[in-house]
Amino acid sequence: MSSTKVQYAAFLTVMGLAVAAAVPAAQPRSLAITGATIIDGTGKAPLSDGVVVVVDGRIAAVGRARDVSIPRGAQKLDGRGKYVIPGLMDGVNMTWFSTNVENLVRYEGRYHEILIECAQVALKNGITGAFATWRTHNPAMKARDMIESGAAVGASIYVGGNIIGFDGMFSADSSAAAAPFVSPDFVKRTNDEFVQGTGRDLMWMGPEEVRAVIRNYVQTHKLDYLKYAANAHWLQGGVLNAEYLSFSERVQKVIVEEGHRASLSVQAHAMSGEGIDMAVEAGVDLLTHGDMSGPKTPIPAETLQKMVERHVFAGVLPITQRNLELRQREEPGDFTQFLEVAKVNRRNMIKAGVPLLLGTEAGLKSPTQPPTVDDKVDPSLHSYVGVAHFNAMVALEEEGMSRMEILKSATSNIAKAFKLDADVGTVESGKVANLVILGANPLDDVRNYRRIDAVIKDGKVVDRNALPLAPIISVKTAGGN
Amino acid sequence: MSSTKVQYAAFLTVMGLAVAAAVPAAQPRSLAITGATIIDGTGKAPLSDGVVVVVDGRIAAVGRARDVSIPRGAQKLDGRGKYVIPGLMDGVNMTWFSTNVENLVRYEGRYHEILIECAQVALKNGITGAFATWRTHNPAMKARDMIESGAAVGASIYVGGNIIGFDGMFSADSSAAAAPFVSPDFVKRTNDEFVQGTGRDLMWMGPEEVRAVIRNYVQTHKLDYLKYAANAHWLQGGVLNAEYLSFSERVQKVIVEEGHRASLSVQAHAMSGEGIDMAVEAGVDLLTHGDMSGPKTPIPAETLQKMVERHVFAGVLPITQRNLELRQREEPGDFTQFLEVAKVNRRNMIKAGVPLLLGTEAGLKSPTQPPTVDDKVDPSLHSYVGVAHFNAMVALEEEGMSRMEILKSATSNIAKAFKLDADVGTVESGKVANLVILGANPLDDVRNYRRIDAVIKDGKVVDRNALPLAPIISVKTAGGN
Amino acid sequence: MSSTKVQYAAFLTVMGLAVAAAVPAAQPRSLAITGATIIDGTGKAPLSDGVVVVVDGRIAAVGRARDVSIPRGAQKLDGRGKYVIPGLMDGVNMTWFSTNVENLVRYEGRYHEILIECAQVALKNGITGAFATWRTHNPAMKARDMIESGAAVGASIYVGGNIIGFDGMFSADSSAAAAPFVSPDFVKRTNDEFVQGTGRDLMWMGPEEVRAVIRNYVQTHKLDYLKYAANAHWLQGGVLNAEYLSFSERVQKVIVEEGHRASLSVQAHAMSGEGIDMAVEAGVDLLTHGDMSGPKTPIPAETLQKMVERHVFAGVLPITQRNLELRQREEPGDFTQFLEVAKVNRRNMIKAGVPLLLGTEAGLKSPTQPPTVDDKVDPSLHSYVGVAHFNAMVALEEEGMSRMEILKSATSNIAKAFKLDADVGTVESGKVANLVILGANPLDDVRNYRRIDAVIKDGKVVDRNALPLAPIISVKTAGGN
Amino acid sequence: MSSTKVQYAAFLTVMGLAVAAAVPAAQPRSLAITGATIIDGTGKAPLSDGVVVVVDGRIAAVGRARDVSIPRGAQKLDGRGKYVIPGLMDGVNMTWFSTNVENLVRYEGRYHEILIECAQVALKNGITGAFATWRTHNPAMKARDMIESGAAVGASIYVGGNIIGFDGMFSADSSAAAAPFVSPDFVKRTNDEFVQGTGRDLMWMGPEEVRAVIRNYVQTHKLDYLKYAANAHWLQGGVLNAEYLSFSERVQKVIVEEGHRASLSVQAHAMSGEGIDMAVEAGVDLLTHGDMSGPKTPIPAETLQKMVERHVFAGVLPITQRNLELRQREEPGDFTQFLEVAKVNRRNMIKAGVPLLLGTEAGLKSPTQPPTVDDKVDPSLHSYVGVAHFNAMVALEEEGMSRMEILKSATSNIAKAFKLDADVGTVESGKVANLVILGANPLDDVRNYRRIDAVIKDGKVVDRNALPLAPIISVKTAGGN
Repeated sequence: MSSTKVQYAAFLTVMGLAVAAAVPAAQPRSLAITGATIIDGTGKAPLSDGVVVVVDGRIAAVGRARDVSIPRGAQKLDGRGKYVIPGLMDGVNMTWFSTNVENLVRYEGRYHEILIECAQVALKNGITGAFATWRTHNPAMKARDMIESGAAVGASIYVGGNIIGFDGMFSADSSAAAAPFVSPDFVKRTNDEFVQGTGRDLMWMGPEEVRAVIRNYVQTHKLDYLKYAANAHWLQGGVLNAEYLSFSERVQKVIVEEGHRASLSVQAHAMSGEGIDMAVEAGVDLLTHGDMSGPKTPIPAETLQKMVERHVFAGVLPITQRNLELRQREEPGDFTQFLEVAKVNRRNMIKAGVPLLLGTEAGLKSPTQPPTVDDKVDPSLHSYVGVAHFNAMVALEEEGMSRMEILKSATSNIAKAFKLDADVGTVESGKVANLVILGANPLDDVRNYRRIDAVIKDGKVVDRNALPLAPIISVKTAGGN
Repeated sequence: MSSTKVQYAAFLTVMGLAVAAAVPAAQPRSLAITGATIIDGTGKAPLSDGVVVVVDGRIAAVGRARDVSIPRGAQKLDGRGKYVIPGLMDGVNMTWFSTNVENLVRYEGRYHEILIECAQVALKNGITGAFATWRTHNPAMKARDMIESGAAVGASIYVGGNIIGFDGMFSADSSAAAAPFVSPDFVKRTNDEFVQGTGRDLMWMGPEEVRAVIRNYVQTHKLDYLKYAANAHWLQGGVLNAEYLSFSERVQKVIVEEGHRASLSVQAHAMSGEGIDMAVEAGVDLLTHGDMSGPKTPIPAETLQKMVERHVFAGVLPITQRNLELRQREEPGDFTQFLEVAKVNRRNMIKAGVPLLLGTEAGLKSPTQPPTVDDKVDPSLHSYVGVAHFNAMVALEEEGMSRMEILKSATSNIAKAFKLDADVGTVESGKVANLVILGANPLDDVRNYRRIDAVIKDGKVVDRNALPLAPIISVKTAGGN
Repeated sequence: MSSTKVQYAAFLTVMGLAVAAAVPAAQPRSLAITGATIIDGTGKAPLSDGVVVVVDGRIAAVGRARDVSIPRGAQKLDGRGKYVIPGLMDGVNMTWFSTNVENLVRYEGRYHEILIECAQVALKNGITGAFATWRTHNPAMKARDMIESGAAVGASIYVGGNIIGFDGMFSADSSAAAAPFVSPDFVKRTNDEFVQGTGRDLMWMGPEEVRAVIRNYVQTHKLDYLKYAANAHWLQGGVLNAEYLSFSERVQKVIVEEGHRASLSVQAHAMSGEGIDMAVEAGVDLLTHGDMSGPKTPIPAETLQKMVERHVFAGVLPITQRNLELRQREEPGDFTQFLEVAKVNRRNMIKAGVPLLLGTEAGLKSPTQPPTVDDKVDPSLHSYVGVAHFNAMVALEEEGMSRMEILKSATSNIAKAFKLDADVGTVESGKVANLVILGANPLDDVRNYRRIDAVIKDGKVVDRNALPLAPIISVKTAGGN
Repeated sequence: MSSTKVQYAAFLTVMGLAVAAAVPAAQPRSLAITGATIIDGTGKAPLSDGVVVVVDGRIAAVGRARDVSIPRGAQKLDGRGKYVIPGLMDGVNMTWFSTNVENLVRYEGRYHEILIECAQVALKNGITGAFATWRTHNPAMKARDMIESGAAVGASIYVGGNIIGFDGMFSADSSAAAAPFVSPDFVKRTNDEFVQGTGRDLMWMGPEEVRAVIRNYVQTHKLDYLKYAANAHWLQGGVLNAEYLSFSERVQKVIVEEGHRASLSVQAHAMSGEGIDMAVEAGVDLLTHGDMSGPKTPIPAETLQKMVERHVFAGVLPITQRNLELRQREEPGDFTQFLEVAKVNRRNMIKAGVPLLLGTEAGLKSPTQPPTVDDKVDPSLHSYVGVAHFNAMVALEEEGMSRMEILKSATSNIAKAFKLDADVGTVESGKVANLVILGANPLDDVRNYRRIDAVIKDGKVVDRNALPLAPIISVKTAGGN
């Protein structure tokens, strides 16, 4: 254990967190799963009766029993009748919690703990990597680093900083009306935590001014990827505002250039057909929720074609037909129309061959949130961390995606889109040993992703029953937590 | 030290509060102030070269040196050139802090500590007794009991429960608009803490229904006095609403009867001339801010006469002419008009001989409050605990009250109005030894109340420099804290 | 035709109104209805095969054929198989239209025409007398005078001025939020038209100040009755405010005294049990909507008993069980709870023998109003002028009132409550000849009130098909217009 | 007089408008101004002792007396000591009135009369051509056509339809909060009148969809020019929103193409530096208020250079330093910061040589508008039609523009920018005879534009004293009306 790990462990002890569960002391250096069917996430046909060997946290070998030698003293997992897949990821921002005023005040100084809690609920449910943008920046970095160092257990967190062009919690981009009920100091420091100097002010600037801000931002913020707003946020003062564009194409290009200059994957929050097209032209690697094109008009075929040609990935937020109908009945209006059009877009994208990333925007279910439609009407449609990704996979199948592609959308596609594919996303030799062992074949039935036998993170078997270790705000839901 | 005291002391140690400062271990059982001029708060002429003897927390003797014997071993305070007066009180609710959402969430579970902090700032500035209504009920009881038991130091707190007829923090009577930013649970438990089952619902009830509610409330809540709304609160949804009456006269009478039945002093929050008259007719002992009669019409002479005849006390909230003019210039509008009329009312009351109680509605200055006009324009007019009562005394003199009456308004009048005069309010034999020693004569200049040499509470000399012991939200202001 | 009549007639011609229909030129001076069953509104048993003789607009004789002589040349109406009842009245304010900003601006200068339109729709449906308070005062007086003088046809309008204590259209008592969209001048003159100097300001005053204002108001405003607010209006800034009381009992007594001094019937707008009781104690003749006591508590039996003993009338706003259930399902909340309790109150009042006045608060259905629940879900429940009173009668029967009492509630009770019984309310000799001839017996089935054969107003047969003569804002509804 | 003219004249007579003043019956076919100094608006040096000959409404000749022959029977104006300049224009939308709810309802059906009133106040003060966009479209066309046909007198109106991308009066782009106070029908027809099918919906569309809409719009709407939103409108729900971009560059290009295809001048409403740059790249002829680049950042030099190179005109809204300082003191905030930056921009544009159009966005002063800062504090800064352009000229001089350029900015530049220069903008042979005769030299002192001796429109001397002929909403202000 590194000194950093020791230090964090001490810290966690003080906090009453069960360090033992988080960092099992005596796991052997190597581990072998034998007799399993391996679906490696590359799209290759499954390998039956396969062996995966893990040494020091990385996959040392994958293959048939006769081709692979198992190190002496390795921990052995009997995989007969089981299926090994790469650790799942959630391609859209999901490491967060309801940042209402009560949570923000009550847990100030502890946000990173809640983010770790979120990462633990995810890990328990097969997700070994997730993403965090906007909201609380430094706590996200702290949670990421604690998990990376081994001081805390949880899905790996990748931090994207602010959505460039968005202001903070107490602004028109979120809850400006809450500001009078807290102190000006709290407003300022919370907004600063969200914005990190890259908010709406940038929209008044020319390209070179923006470049200077972004270059400095990238250099000083240890980001894992870069994200900017191609369109305005959803609402402004209660009015649909998402059709507006945040940055000119030339400014978008500058932002993309600066991200790429720092070897970061760059993505755009787009909400309209033109917003998507501009971001693609600007050279993004990824559209955060590329299935959102407004309440009326699906993405034109030319734009989809352009995405295919330029290998632009699209994060998507699939919901099932049943969920959509629930919303059409209970919450008709702009946003439900967005969801209707998004469903059309996903079908078109699947047909056109746009590479998709399974995503959920799921957060921790918190008792301080007002209940949503599915809380009230159909809990099986829950959109919280630990459940949402299972539902999203069902939706993708419904929308015409093959089961093999669904697996890729939740593993290797995400790794590629975020430029993480040297390390994660597939069950291949040399990759970090993030694995899920299922009790039934996900290529037979997409519902089988729920049948998790084991989750392996960084080569170690996760004690799923212990997670989340020290829940602060999460609430038991049907599928998980 | 009683077992309760021990228990609290242990508790405080855990909390990191300096118990030593709060409960000085080795003070002698008796104390004598010699050579001082004693102004005893009854209205009698000052006694020069007097002696006050304190034994076991109560005044054992007051008189000329030749008439009074000092117990052996008594702690002696040389009072030559100094003035002994009763401990001051603040007759209007003052034990509170800014209950905005940030404070309420951040300090949930610790409200009593802040109330103790408030009582400590008060004590430091010569106030040995203060009052708490509305807002957080159980924490106020807890703070009261800790101070009473000696587990905490501070001005005595007297608890009045809800203002009967008012709803809570997250209601039209305070900040309904803040509710969406916190959880429904928090809304409910905070409102319950304020309301204690005696809110607006009572306005729909007939007299006997109200009687049943109040009788139960009085029996179960360990109140020190009873308070109800004769008029509506100040604003409702941004609109002046205070001209409305909350209860019919017969219901008011029922409330008063039930208070008196339990031997409690009963007071009314009135805001209009008719509200005041109805409350007087209903038999109240006290009007909380009897100088408030609206933005237009002073209290009629007949009503003032009725108050004199029936010995109804009036709490008042005096502000100086300079303060009033500041507000007229910077904040013209309804509330400033209230203040103008209130100044006329106080002059009329002084002339008519209505017995007044000095009051301030001061709270702890908190960094989470937006700055007020005097914060910004004239800090010498501050209305925070520890400063406000000094300014109010200056205002009373300006409005025509004699200096002897001013002293009574801050001591014996308050004790009588709240039925506390068996114990406090004067420097007389048998009373609790709550005393202030001034370095200059307050009958020469009302500003001399600021020249505090010592404060004695329950017969013990207060370590004023140490207060507040463990400040949580208070901020240093010009005059105090 | 008086010169005033001629003058108005000329005026109406210019306006394009069909004077001929309004003032039939050649009706004979006398009229006789023969062979009808007469139900005279006093509660007496019906007189079969009766004769009503009308001369010069008043009833000259009522009796059996053998006892009554018919003037030569009298117009004869064959009443065989028909039922003659007094002209109906609507005991609660109903002469109004949706005073939203659009109507107020668009029809400024023509409000009286719309009020006449309203009176015509009422008359067409058997209502010969209706009431107008709050809203546009001078136009109401003008409409009243035009109808009284014969210059316009319509139900008689009785004008009650402001609801003393209420402010105007652009105030917290109605639509303060609309003020920014019109000119300050328009706000002022519209509010003045509503308030007539008797608004909220009076709540700050003592009894003698209020007396002076009311005395002057009564002397200068040619009112037919006086109305004041015992409780606050329904909402204030979106919050239920009706539990508050507007005036102390002694001020209410002053208002009642001044009304009675001018020989006016005095009524109170009360909304809570205590509000009702205070108004009864203050000596009102009438409670505007005496069935409204809040969302929780029915009126206590003692108060009902007091009303019976003091002959205090109660206007009521009956709705059917079906209508109530529609609202419970579609619009749950405070107001529907008011309606639930009101239904209980009406049942209790009927049992206790409180004299009731059928009322509706119906107004003209205007296309500028948003549709109501019954517009959308069940048009048969319409609450517009011309329909609402029929539905209200059905509700009263459902609530236990005898059919004879229902007739009285819509005729003689109203006349007595408003001190109009020397002239209207019954079919008796000497009364103004306001009559309705029904084609079926209303004592057999309360639905028979819809079977109107003829309406006689001031002794003249109304040309019902022609009404409303010059509709400005009314819309055809199921039952009427 | 054409039959259309006769028809309109008859119509006007019915309306009580003074037709005689509008269409002087017996003016001769030709007119000559002699002995005047002619400053022809082209930038050429003034011609002293010059002659302008007008025949049939057009300028037949301009030159020295010896070179020009005056037709027999021509009306002669002695121009000695006077200065002839082209009729002034106001390059930014100014033909409007305060479209608050009260005006919109009250004058529905008469909007064109108010627009004519506006054009008359303008004409009286030397403005012979003005522009109208957004707001009431068909009334603007009607007013334009009546003036063009001679049926009404007034400055020529050029109609630009909607600002493409903006919604109507009752929308987030203007006064959404007013909608509840009028009928849904009124909301719909007013919004339709503003939007003409080219509102926010277009922002969801791709380029070819937008093209189809615009092509149809241009073909069916008889526009004089085309205008679209490059940026969002000023505010959205009370929040500064103008930094957002409405259309992608490729969609902007499509809009410009379709305008040019129909031979229309195309302009963009831009509010940020990037908005301006994108519009220039898209090929606009004109920026509506090209001096507006936000509250922080002036327009970069490169963009200004681009405007010069591509001959893109910039409408500007100059205000004097005194006016700016008034606003900085009385109305600090976002908008005043816009004005500060705009002043910097104008100085930079003047230096860089960007061709500017004098503009005011002035409207008729209406009593239904709340008073502005200058109404209250400094009326000499009024920004109403008839006064505003004089103040704007003073501001331009203050900002460094030469007096000859100021004249061009109000005449020939505007004509060129709007492609009207074949007809108007200079005193040259063949142009329409729109002329102003000043009593003092505007090249000596920019304040001399106020010294109007005569205005000639379409070759006829305007009876300035008679204007406005039938004022509906205008109010006398210091400088004009």
